[in-house]
Amino acid sequence: MIEEAKRSFDRQGFMKTLGAKIISIEKGMVKIACEKKESLTQQHGYFHAGVITSIADVACGYAALTTMPKGSEVLSVEFKTNLMKAAISDKIIAIGKVVKTGKTLVFCEAKVTDDKEETIFATLQGTMICIQTKPTE
Amino acid sequence: MIEEAKRSFDRQGFMKTLGAKIISIEKGMVKIACEKKESLTQQHGYFHAGVITSIADVACGYAALTTMPKGSEVLSVEFKTNLMKAAISDKIIAIGKVVKTGKTLVFCEAKVTDDKEETIFATLQGTMICIQTKPTE
Amino acid sequence: MIEEAKRSFDRQGFMKTLGAKIISIEKGMVKIACEKKESLTQQHGYFHAGVITSIADVACGYAALTTMPKGSEVLSVEFKTNLMKAAISDKIIAIGKVVKTGKTLVFCEAKVTDDKEETIFATLQGTMICIQTKPTE
Amino acid sequence: MIEEAKRSFDRQGFMKTLGAKIISIEKGMVKIACEKKESLTQQHGYFHAGVITSIADVACGYAALTTMPKGSEVLSVEFKTNLMKAAISDKIIAIGKVVKTGKTLVFCEAKVTDDKEETIFATLQGTMICIQTKPTE
Repeated sequence: MIEEAKRSFDRQGFMKTLGAKIISIEKGMVKIACEKKESLTQQHGYFHAGVITSIADVACGYAALTTMPKGSEVLSVEFKTNLMKAAISDKIIAIGKVVKTGKTLVFCEAKVTDDKEETIFATLQGTMICIQTKPTE
Repeated sequence: MIEEAKRSFDRQGFMKTLGAKIISIEKGMVKIACEKKESLTQQHGYFHAGVITSIADVACGYAALTTMPKGSEVLSVEFKTNLMKAAISDKIIAIGKVVKTGKTLVFCEAKVTDDKEETIFATLQGTMICIQTKPTE
Repeated sequence: MIEEAKRSFDRQGFMKTLGAKIISIEKGMVKIACEKKESLTQQHGYFHAGVITSIADVACGYAALTTMPKGSEVLSVEFKTNLMKAAISDKIIAIGKVVKTGKTLVFCEAKVTDDKEETIFATLQGTMICIQTKPTE
Repeated sequence: MIEEAKRSFDRQGFMKTLGAKIISIEKGMVKIACEKKESLTQQHGYFHAGVITSIADVACGYAALTTMPKGSEVLSVEFKTNLMKAAISDKIIAIGKVVKTGKTLVFCEAKVTDDKEETIFATLQGTMICIQTKPTE
């Protein structure tokens, strides 16, 4: 499902708006990077919490999709973001991982760090749901 | 603090990127509207969960700021989004309200609806922190 | 499903331990009351956050069950508690309500108040899942 | 602050009710164990989500307290529990860890496992607040 995840990511207009890119993808893990530009800032000039959350959610969603059966699609049910530190770096990386898969629900966690993956700016915990679609033959 | 909230909102580059606008602001309550464009979509062409969360967080943050003492600034500590329904409308509205104020922390809730404020697409619950800055005299 | 909810509640050993009682139940809404005793306290002698969360979760779970088809059981997927104020009263009431039902998931909210339902001590937002069991005929 | 954390734990009537015990405590990390008895069960005879959450919250709270200055007390601001699997074991262990300390807020995570710390039943993410009290001299 890695190719399906990439294709689905490419259909997200909002990821283009953020300039977000998948930099690593394997079964159960997706990394997304995003570079700072003024169009992504909050009132003090740092990365907006909404940007941080968006790439963390998407990293989790596609990490979940890579573990689902062929013909599945993924939607977010809920997620929670804890903002631990102002995201003052020039680039942020969201690392989304699957913690537990089920038939219907997949539970994931992400952290958002600087570009060395050292300083943690935020964490996200979320539940993803597997939507069965008919395989397009 | 209503004018301070508006000014702070105007400094958020990311709100311009979303085309988000404050359409109502009073003590403890802020409404933000956002119109659909392809640059804000997820893979099925609906509003992205990240957009929904971003305007809900900002509505809560500025609702909180309107209740804080002069010279304060607001930051999000954490928020949780429950996504109840695909946001299929052409415009979404986030209504953020203060539930409980404290000396340091303010707890807020938001809902994100269609433009008639009838169908609820998502809810957000969040904790905001009051940062005391020296009043700029 | 109101009778099923009551019977399931009665099977919870932990609700007996808390001395928790359903004081109101209708489709989509359940109220549970709990009286203070030393066995339910935190370090300052108030209701423990774990007690508050437990009755709020159960109120949501059974509110959800009342909306599910016959033969269903309910499990909690996730919940978040915001603790707004020390629960200093002698009795607390959790009011759980269904916000949105789906085929599989039901999203609920609860508040926990004093016995006049005036002062809010905590809120909880949670996702419940419907487990289909074979109807016992 | 390790002795203060132990003493505060011992003042919690609710921890006695659960039969919960601190089995390990060091700066930034606390483990709490709890054995199954009928008084702690949900409707299917497993550990109640409320019990799981209670010991995870307390493990986080005291993990946070060990990192705070002398004379501090700790309160939970909010926490979120994800329930990944029915807690079918005879004993559960909550491992609470500090993720990020601040002057006022401490962000923590816990997992609740079987007694071999292998199977994860639930995770909790929470924010704790440091309350400054006058040192008791």
